[in-house]
Amino acid sequence: MIAEIVAVGTEILLGDIVNTNACFLSRRLAAVGVDVYHHVVVGDNPGRMAAAFRQALGRSDLVVVSGGLGPTEDDLSKEVMAEVLGLPLDFDAAVMAGIEDFFRKRRRPLTPNARKQALVPRGATVLPNPVGTAPGLFLEAGGKMVFLLPGPPGELGAVWEQHAEPLLRRLGVGGQVILSRTLKVCAMGESQVAHLVGDLFASSNPTVAPYAKPGEVHLRVTAKASGPEQARELMAPLEAEIRRRLGWRVFAVDDGTMAHAVGERLVAAGLTLAVAESCTGGMLGALITTVPGSSRYFLGGIVAYANQVKVSHLDVPGELIRERGAVSEEVAGAMAAGVRNRLGADVSLAISGVAGPGGGSPAKPVGTVCFALARPEGLFTWSEFLRGDREEVRGRACQVALTTLYRYLVTGNPEGE
Amino acid sequence: MIAEIVAVGTEILLGDIVNTNACFLSRRLAAVGVDVYHHVVVGDNPGRMAAAFRQALGRSDLVVVSGGLGPTEDDLSKEVMAEVLGLPLDFDAAVMAGIEDFFRKRRRPLTPNARKQALVPRGATVLPNPVGTAPGLFLEAGGKMVFLLPGPPGELGAVWEQHAEPLLRRLGVGGQVILSRTLKVCAMGESQVAHLVGDLFASSNPTVAPYAKPGEVHLRVTAKASGPEQARELMAPLEAEIRRRLGWRVFAVDDGTMAHAVGERLVAAGLTLAVAESCTGGMLGALITTVPGSSRYFLGGIVAYANQVKVSHLDVPGELIRERGAVSEEVAGAMAAGVRNRLGADVSLAISGVAGPGGGSPAKPVGTVCFALARPEGLFTWSEFLRGDREEVRGRACQVALTTLYRYLVTGNPEGE
Repeated sequence: MIAEIVAVGTEILLGDIVNTNACFLSRRLAAVGVDVYHHVVVGDNPGRMAAAFRQALGRSDLVVVSGGLGPTEDDLSKEVMAEVLGLPLDFDAAVMAGIEDFFRKRRRPLTPNARKQALVPRGATVLPNPVGTAPGLFLEAGGKMVFLLPGPPGELGAVWEQHAEPLLRRLGVGGQVILSRTLKVCAMGESQVAHLVGDLFASSNPTVAPYAKPGEVHLRVTAKASGPEQARELMAPLEAEIRRRLGWRVFAVDDGTMAHAVGERLVAAGLTLAVAESCTGGMLGALITTVPGSSRYFLGGIVAYANQVKVSHLDVPGELIRERGAVSEEVAGAMAAGVRNRLGADVSLAISGVAGPGGGSPAKPVGTVCFALARPEGLFTWSEFLRGDREEVRGRACQVALTTLYRYLVTGNPEGE
Repeated sequence: MIAEIVAVGTEILLGDIVNTNACFLSRRLAAVGVDVYHHVVVGDNPGRMAAAFRQALGRSDLVVVSGGLGPTEDDLSKEVMAEVLGLPLDFDAAVMAGIEDFFRKRRRPLTPNARKQALVPRGATVLPNPVGTAPGLFLEAGGKMVFLLPGPPGELGAVWEQHAEPLLRRLGVGGQVILSRTLKVCAMGESQVAHLVGDLFASSNPTVAPYAKPGEVHLRVTAKASGPEQARELMAPLEAEIRRRLGWRVFAVDDGTMAHAVGERLVAAGLTLAVAESCTGGMLGALITTVPGSSRYFLGGIVAYANQVKVSHLDVPGELIRERGAVSEEVAGAMAAGVRNRLGADVSLAISGVAGPGGGSPAKPVGTVCFALARPEGLFTWSEFLRGDREEVRGRACQVALTTLYRYLVTGNPEGE
């Protein structure tokens, strides 16, 4: 079964809104084992809508249309689809009663154009909308299945979950389940990952595909099987092989982050953490505390944005700042040592850099970031040149700091293998 | 000039990522006066890619392809487009040198598959990628224009802004210009905004439309005209009228944020700021320092995630924490006073709350957040119940703290009008 998602709405083509409906529907269709081969977006134009609907009906078994079911004259999905399928529109009294009820409950006057939403293509199954006035519709015609769903994401989601997906399951659609797991790889670029596991990319079920992310590579393992358990069984050996080759560099799965990976290792080792931040302004602490329960290991931090705070609250010698500059490995080292000592933490991280857009110099251009990791064995300092705008440099700096801490916690060495 | 955006990537069809590239490109094309009639998404399948490219070239004047330019065997956009247009692929030594440089700067070994990214369809203009290895490409063939752009949004955005859009402008593409400005409104709900300026929503050119955001309302003013200057002239009186009615509550325009608004007011008043954070873990400081030049007024902060740090580094009496709890207006007040005193700032903000998912109690459920603003006139403390998951509560807490500071700086009173 091949599906296609057609979103209708000029606002998407103008870039005013992102087509999150296509993303939601794709994920849900994959979960019931339906392959999506195309997403299409057309504006509120009857001619182009009709062409898109005809093409979708020609090449796909299931067509899911989102948007264009509202009360205004611009909302034409139902009218155009009915015409393409040669179906008349009938007034549905039950739908109208639901719309009237919706307005009454919200104490809003019923508007004349609301009646348009009670027109239903002959033979369609009405899928009630629990959070809005436009119901979803399901049609079967010429061996094809069609859903028409309201455009607001909250309404589309509710109609899909409560009515459309159960109906598909009742019809025995899909059957085969597609499951995916994303293995996240650190401390290695996409080409290097491809070099080490690229031969596995030829596998067909399960498949594995790489996605380059800033500072990380994601390997997505996908399996298709008769059920979730069978899909998981298919994926397990491939995942094990990837982990065997890449080792600790696989730091997280799916929604897991480097902050989670670091947290797990700190808890396992019984260590506490503190941070000292300059250019990141608190972002590293904010990232660490995205993890629920991070209070088990994170004590806190000193945001020393002004140099005077580096001196007064991190015991960085003022002379060191004058001689080496605030953005130097020496000052980062003193910051890490200072916060570790002051907060009584086992390990600490410090970041001081030039995030830009101003503040760069020939010797220390924008993107220069100095780091330090203070640990019982002593100080480890290093620096990197990070690309991107101010927020990218700051975000990458936090990621680099956490990745180095993770590497130290796993291998016993910030540069360990 | 009619444009079409074709995104290539099975991950989009699986619902793993949202097609934000299409949204970005649509907005940018609208700004140069190009109408987008279709978005299409196809997977990494050469047959379906070729069909999508052919259809796009048939019905559109400008085809923008995103994704499929990476180094792996799955990345086929360049190869398929070259075949559709009947162009051979040539090895480009200059592109290869750029790729080698990219790897060298990152101290990563160059992998054999990197060479694939240096193949260029004959006659194509190379659009350098400042943040990645795959350059963008521009082709003209059979009266049509084609852009091939890298898929990672940061790379696509950089290539578009630095090379693709300037090239389109040099070619004199585009007709009527659509310009928008977003006025951001704080301290007022959507219905109150509609009550005060709703009559302006009927205007047709320029138009104005409200968008409710968490804690803010955005008013989007849009004008269509023969040029950018004419569009701006159309918008100016409408914007002036909105500002006349809503006053200081219009705190920012377009990319401006509350952090910018607060920064401008602090600079104007010659005041310095410090923060004390518990549940937000550094997020407030990170937000304040998104603003370039924030070192003019932001001294730094203390992230007192552990209670012992509240006592040792913010002078919060241990007894107060035991009696009132760490999440209390009294403790928030002591935190704000402590950081203001310790860092020698003119004003300070403190946040202590239950961000969840654990840690709630019947008296202080998840979402309870206590705040304090310390200023020369004394302490102002308050608390709010914020909805959402852990990250939403933390983000909203920072927004609430900054909005209150802004209100104080503008009106002289944290609750002023």
